[in-house]
Amino acid sequence: MKKVGIVMGSDSDAPVIEKAVKVLNELEIPYEVHIYSAHRTPENAQSFAKNAKENGFGVIIAAAGMAAHLAGVIAANTTLAVIGIPCKSQNLNGIDALLSTVQMPPGVPVATVAVDGGVNAALLSAQILALENEELAKKLEIRKAEEAKKVLEKDKIFSEKFKTMEE
Amino acid sequence: MKKVGIVMGSDSDAPVIEKAVKVLNELEIPYEVHIYSAHRTPENAQSFAKNAKENGFGVIIAAAGMAAHLAGVIAANTTLAVIGIPCKSQNLNGIDALLSTVQMPPGVPVATVAVDGGVNAALLSAQILALENEELAKKLEIRKAEEAKKVLEKDKIFSEKFKTMEE
Amino acid sequence: MKKVGIVMGSDSDAPVIEKAVKVLNELEIPYEVHIYSAHRTPENAQSFAKNAKENGFGVIIAAAGMAAHLAGVIAANTTLAVIGIPCKSQNLNGIDALLSTVQMPPGVPVATVAVDGGVNAALLSAQILALENEELAKKLEIRKAEEAKKVLEKDKIFSEKFKTMEE
Amino acid sequence: MKKVGIVMGSDSDAPVIEKAVKVLNELEIPYEVHIYSAHRTPENAQSFAKNAKENGFGVIIAAAGMAAHLAGVIAANTTLAVIGIPCKSQNLNGIDALLSTVQMPPGVPVATVAVDGGVNAALLSAQILALENEELAKKLEIRKAEEAKKVLEKDKIFSEKFKTMEE
Amino acid sequence: MKKVGIVMGSDSDAPVIEKAVKVLNELEIPYEVHIYSAHRTPENAQSFAKNAKENGFGVIIAAAGMAAHLAGVIAANTTLAVIGIPCKSQNLNGIDALLSTVQMPPGVPVATVAVDGGVNAALLSAQILALENEELAKKLEIRKAEEAKKVLEKDKIFSEKFKTMEE
Amino acid sequence: MKKVGIVMGSDSDAPVIEKAVKVLNELEIPYEVHIYSAHRTPENAQSFAKNAKENGFGVIIAAAGMAAHLAGVIAANTTLAVIGIPCKSQNLNGIDALLSTVQMPPGVPVATVAVDGGVNAALLSAQILALENEELAKKLEIRKAEEAKKVLEKDKIFSEKFKTMEE
Amino acid sequence: MKKVGIVMGSDSDAPVIEKAVKVLNELEIPYEVHIYSAHRTPENAQSFAKNAKENGFGVIIAAAGMAAHLAGVIAANTTLAVIGIPCKSQNLNGIDALLSTVQMPPGVPVATVAVDGGVNAALLSAQILALENEELAKKLEIRKAEEAKKVLEKDKIFSEKFKTMEE
Amino acid sequence: MKKVGIVMGSDSDAPVIEKAVKVLNELEIPYEVHIYSAHRTPENAQSFAKNAKENGFGVIIAAAGMAAHLAGVIAANTTLAVIGIPCKSQNLNGIDALLSTVQMPPGVPVATVAVDGGVNAALLSAQILALENEELAKKLEIRKAEEAKKVLEKDKIFSEKFKTMEE
Repeated sequence: MKKVGIVMGSDSDAPVIEKAVKVLNELEIPYEVHIYSAHRTPENAQSFAKNAKENGFGVIIAAAGMAAHLAGVIAANTTLAVIGIPCKSQNLNGIDALLSTVQMPPGVPVATVAVDGGVNAALLSAQILALENEELAKKLEIRKAEEAKKVLEKDKIFSEKFKTMEE
Repeated sequence: MKKVGIVMGSDSDAPVIEKAVKVLNELEIPYEVHIYSAHRTPENAQSFAKNAKENGFGVIIAAAGMAAHLAGVIAANTTLAVIGIPCKSQNLNGIDALLSTVQMPPGVPVATVAVDGGVNAALLSAQILALENEELAKKLEIRKAEEAKKVLEKDKIFSEKFKTMEE
Repeated sequence: MKKVGIVMGSDSDAPVIEKAVKVLNELEIPYEVHIYSAHRTPENAQSFAKNAKENGFGVIIAAAGMAAHLAGVIAANTTLAVIGIPCKSQNLNGIDALLSTVQMPPGVPVATVAVDGGVNAALLSAQILALENEELAKKLEIRKAEEAKKVLEKDKIFSEKFKTMEE
Repeated sequence: MKKVGIVMGSDSDAPVIEKAVKVLNELEIPYEVHIYSAHRTPENAQSFAKNAKENGFGVIIAAAGMAAHLAGVIAANTTLAVIGIPCKSQNLNGIDALLSTVQMPPGVPVATVAVDGGVNAALLSAQILALENEELAKKLEIRKAEEAKKVLEKDKIFSEKFKTMEE
Repeated sequence: MKKVGIVMGSDSDAPVIEKAVKVLNELEIPYEVHIYSAHRTPENAQSFAKNAKENGFGVIIAAAGMAAHLAGVIAANTTLAVIGIPCKSQNLNGIDALLSTVQMPPGVPVATVAVDGGVNAALLSAQILALENEELAKKLEIRKAEEAKKVLEKDKIFSEKFKTMEE
Repeated sequence: MKKVGIVMGSDSDAPVIEKAVKVLNELEIPYEVHIYSAHRTPENAQSFAKNAKENGFGVIIAAAGMAAHLAGVIAANTTLAVIGIPCKSQNLNGIDALLSTVQMPPGVPVATVAVDGGVNAALLSAQILALENEELAKKLEIRKAEEAKKVLEKDKIFSEKFKTMEE
Repeated sequence: MKKVGIVMGSDSDAPVIEKAVKVLNELEIPYEVHIYSAHRTPENAQSFAKNAKENGFGVIIAAAGMAAHLAGVIAANTTLAVIGIPCKSQNLNGIDALLSTVQMPPGVPVATVAVDGGVNAALLSAQILALENEELAKKLEIRKAEEAKKVLEKDKIFSEKFKTMEE
Repeated sequence: MKKVGIVMGSDSDAPVIEKAVKVLNELEIPYEVHIYSAHRTPENAQSFAKNAKENGFGVIIAAAGMAAHLAGVIAANTTLAVIGIPCKSQNLNGIDALLSTVQMPPGVPVATVAVDGGVNAALLSAQILALENEELAKKLEIRKAEEAKKVLEKDKIFSEKFKTMEE
């Protein structure tokens, strides 16, 4: 199976990446994690992107905060699908990273997920890889069904817990 | 090749979809366009999503404005990758549709592009389909190179036009 | 009396629902609480909505955070009045849930209350049920008068506490 | 049938109210329209609210822009359900009116609809009145079905119009 | 001297009011503090405003959070100058109260200060009362000069503390 | 009577000032209008403020857009009450000017009115001057009553115009 | 004198650049204009930045809209001062470009000016070059004085135009 | 070498300034730190700015929160380049200071860095001084290279730490 490339702009984004990695492990999808900064190590980010396809990557996830350019830099240098995770930083609640990641100009898409959305970035990468991998597609369906079951189990608990008093 | 499913929530979103369709035509990617509203025809949206995979779709693009739930409804009912286009409507400049599309909870990703980002939604769908389609991947690389060339041609014109006066 | 249906998208919304439940208990209004996610268990949310009327519900309260689609999904599947509570989540201060809940397109209204507004959602449901229930209407008037009294009691304390020094 | 009271804060809000009135006419719901400003004629707004119930009103719709206090003033003076329509004005895109209408403190709910959401305010008032009026409830269901049909008719046109070229 | 009327919408606004009261005490300006809610005790708020002038008030300060209507309600019922303090509440960082307070429609001004701006509300009320009170005007000038002196004293400490190392 | 000083930061703010001037003319309040930029002619803005009191001014209105510092500069140099009008400019809908005007630090208040709120700035200045001028206070009360009357006249027209059809 | 490098991300940014060029012409500062897109021609943007110093540039101005990464890309590849102009695009009023430009992470500064702030970008570049160029510094002082004079001329016109009527 | 002038509006901004000072110490750039408030000590801010050039300063950094006018006041009184640091304060997450600092009108630029961006303000001042100081330019290049190295060292650690499990 092709690998998922995961790049974060700074080690402060690691907790978000850990959530993604956990999902990929569950789904047994191979991946590689890197720290490359769009601004501090632009060439590494770029050459990673340029060589990603021939290095066996199928999708790339990029996580960054503030003026979050990392996903955009990656997307500028590959035709693989690039998933952007805007990370919340100290001051503007993540809206800066969200707009910097999602508002890409025509020609260079970044598939943006929610602020700090590590789980969904991993799932989206899995959905993309599953397009030609029926086994992975199955796993995703099973996972979806399990998630639903968990909700319904909680439903039982809560519908019991919050019950009209004398009914 | 698998088809791209395109769903818009209302015919007022058609101009955005036209931009996507134009790109898909250029890349010779088959597609189907539908108007299904998350709120007015929830069942059609849902059954479209549920059957998308076995109906030959590989990716789904969903465009909607305001409390833009369409992409979320689609994503809730398929494990195919779903691309969301938040559409600007009359009052809040598109920020309502953007947040309604991108801030999906863990478990159900929507790959969100820029407000009114029809071109990028199409390109992203092409990138996903190209994962196992080398011919399409080539086309994307050629398109990328041509876009670059266009920029550089404009660069020539403008660097000539805006020139230090007596230099 | 018809019941109030309360649906939350996730158990993390429970503190908001507790506030609503407390008010309904005070007013002796019957209710039922469920956890159904618009995205993880769309069919349960939907069939709850579709059958709500014949199952004896008169109003539905739906609480969700982030891209808060739950109230919209419910509203798409019933003609009962649906009250939406946008819940604050970790990153965007609740503005994402607010816009996702309130900006519904023409045809499918959601009666939106303030971010985390559990108390007001319950009161609004009571006001709706009171339309044809004079006893409940009375209770609401009494509650309103008591709330006013509490304010005026605090007024006494504070107008005494903050007094021009030597006057 | 109880009447819907419609109050707008200024005649500049009339286009929004017209949309509401059109829906009420369709549904044959009796109504009364007034212009009372929360700030310029507070007493009229207030006494309208106080006497609304005994004057035969069942729900009140209040539309206002900017620091939109009208719905709040009405809600402070009645226990009928009050629906607030935040109206867009010249400068802040309607976000001022939206927050001023929806962020009501615990105890005094306002059922807020989208910015300029005249249609949904009317539908919501109808849903509330339909709670004990099976005929009106029917009409709402029929209207909902018709709206769905319209969407599906447009779907036919657009799915034909945007068709993969040579397929 | 005319008194400053201070009204807060809830006792949760008391810390903001304490800052105002402290300044008024320093300047020896008489005042009265009340808790009247625009929504829970509208009549008390209103009759306070209506009688403020003949009860010896010269200016009114109103502090409230969320959909902060209190200053507007006061201003609707008096021709005295009304100063509004938007108070931060739990969810939207104070932007809701700010817009609800400042965006008053033409005809009914509210002199708005910063979010939680208790000190400035008091100073503004003092500036208004000082218009015809030379003694108070003097005190304000002295206070202003003292504030400047404090800044300059800190300047000395900090310009010493942060000094180029070997210079 | 003391004069109202009106300062605008640029002639592009003149339409807002015209609205203020019209109100002052109606109320027969003397005024003087100036263009002084906080950034381009800081000294003129400052010396105007410093000498305002002895030059017979009682209140100052300052209107500016973008990073609207004018009211703040004036307020820094006088103990007269300063009213700030944030003006909308081309790009950020007035929110930049609003925050730049209202968020003054403790010690230097600016009485901020709505974006482009020329009418209310003038009325607020009148309310301040009316504190010790019973004749002006009367005029304000009369104006307020007339405004109310206008609303009620419109109410008649509209309550007639929008009438339940067959009622 | 060192040249000012001006880079825009797209020819749609040309009107903003024209304002900058006009100022540079006035001040007789040599410059070069280019169109290089951070996303479509990343290598040209980068190699321009890398060679800027040895090619005789002293400062670089970069203008871009949406997820405006251009200034960041330039800044990542040079130690020259980089000035960023966030450009307004169709949907989000320029707030996306502003945050994408200004919120740079520690280590890679971008000197950001106002949305569409072409004039100030040019002036800032001139101020930087003037640091070691007394003649240019003089020109800037003269320009500043002339701007002030223009304001004061307008002041005369407007203070005459808006005059208390019978005074 | 010319000095960097650092001015903060209040001692609460000191933590941000400390970050800037640390960088300047590393780069052995002389500086002077002051606390001058745009509103409380306008004349000191102004005369500092007016005399900055002849007092040996080459660039000025100004840090302030809320309606952050300090950088603007400095820029109004000098033709030296002025760098503005918007500081986050208690209520609006720094967006007030950001807009107050960056949205300067044409004619008076402020080179704005990120909210609380002390490090980048210092680096930007160094870049400006380095324009005619080859030694400092070298130091900046070395620092940039070291920052890159640090990122790549972290990359090694993290790419090892997050490794596909059985690969």
